[in-house]
Amino acid sequence: MARWQPDAKGRLQEAAMELFVRQGLEETTVAQIAERAGLNKRTFFRHFPDKRDVLFSGQQALEELYTKTIAEAPDVSVPMAAVAPAVVAAGEIVDRLGEQGRQRQRLIAANPALQEREAIKRVAVAATIREALCRRGVPDPVAALTAEAAVGVFKVAYARWGGDESRTMADVVRETIAHLDRATATHPTEPAAGPARRAARSGR
Amino acid sequence: MARWQPDAKGRLQEAAMELFVRQGLEETTVAQIAERAGLNKRTFFRHFPDKRDVLFSGQQALEELYTKTIAEAPDVSVPMAAVAPAVVAAGEIVDRLGEQGRQRQRLIAANPALQEREAIKRVAVAATIREALCRRGVPDPVAALTAEAAVGVFKVAYARWGGDESRTMADVVRETIAHLDRATATHPTEPAAGPARRAARSGR
Repeated sequence: MARWQPDAKGRLQEAAMELFVRQGLEETTVAQIAERAGLNKRTFFRHFPDKRDVLFSGQQALEELYTKTIAEAPDVSVPMAAVAPAVVAAGEIVDRLGEQGRQRQRLIAANPALQEREAIKRVAVAATIREALCRRGVPDPVAALTAEAAVGVFKVAYARWGGDESRTMADVVRETIAHLDRATATHPTEPAAGPARRAARSGR
Repeated sequence: MARWQPDAKGRLQEAAMELFVRQGLEETTVAQIAERAGLNKRTFFRHFPDKRDVLFSGQQALEELYTKTIAEAPDVSVPMAAVAPAVVAAGEIVDRLGEQGRQRQRLIAANPALQEREAIKRVAVAATIREALCRRGVPDPVAALTAEAAVGVFKVAYARWGGDESRTMADVVRETIAHLDRATATHPTEPAAGPARRAARSGR
């Protein structure tokens, strides 16, 4: 999801998105995308393994963003606080895509096969975040759990952002992070322990 | 991942696991699995869409477990406390599979294609958990975040359990849940705010 430039790769992305939106993902062929971009199929396959991957081309940049942000965090004693700025920055990348970013979200939301591809990409992002936290000395399972929570935040925020044209993705990410404590607390913060509390604490 | 019974489905699962372990997933054909179970390919395909799905056949029971546990939770004011017993119960299902459960974990850990399939299944489980929480009145994004955290806990616990032959999966799930607060807190619990805290809170 790097910003689309008018180079071959960027032209292919733009052409693909236009065709996906106009005629649907299934109905669009690589040949059509290449033709629309004024290129040939061989050039397409130099940049993307298949047509769906046009929508997920920013994976490496995204993983580098997480790795760099966590490596440079002044403090990892609160691991999510070290990861959160990268989740917000990932949201800002989405925002910079403008209308194409909105179209991308709608395409994914409407297409289970793309959601599956997204789920697979999330596994790699989570592994990257966990590794970066471990390198900073955050122990497992905390590092692994923080990584899962971070990709969960992004996923939840992305769907919410898709349903709200008035806000930026970065803003929705920040709001979503602010709800994380409430979502993952395992016992009440006020003295109101009920059966649910006992159930969560049984065993150890 | 229901307990394997000596019915056709159970025999196919047992045969598949034996062959996967002995000769590898890629090298095993549906015909071989059916033959070993004393059945034919048509019977196999009545139970499973493909050979990989033999390893993920308990999906519906798992989703029902989450739905039922959350529906019957006496209290959802701490949403994760309402979901946690179901995550532990899912761990107990794994434990009841015995050595076959261990083999299953090792197969998945060694096979990226199976990890992808698992990631896709997790999306469905998360959607089920979120829906069950929403029905109990837990608002989004909290419901969605709790769901992501719950499937994240199971994923992290499953990998840890795979590396520790001495413990039950249910036990590792409980321990993992106990680390969740630390992993998802976005600001220090003690007054030790550093730059990471400010970064996490910037914006709103």
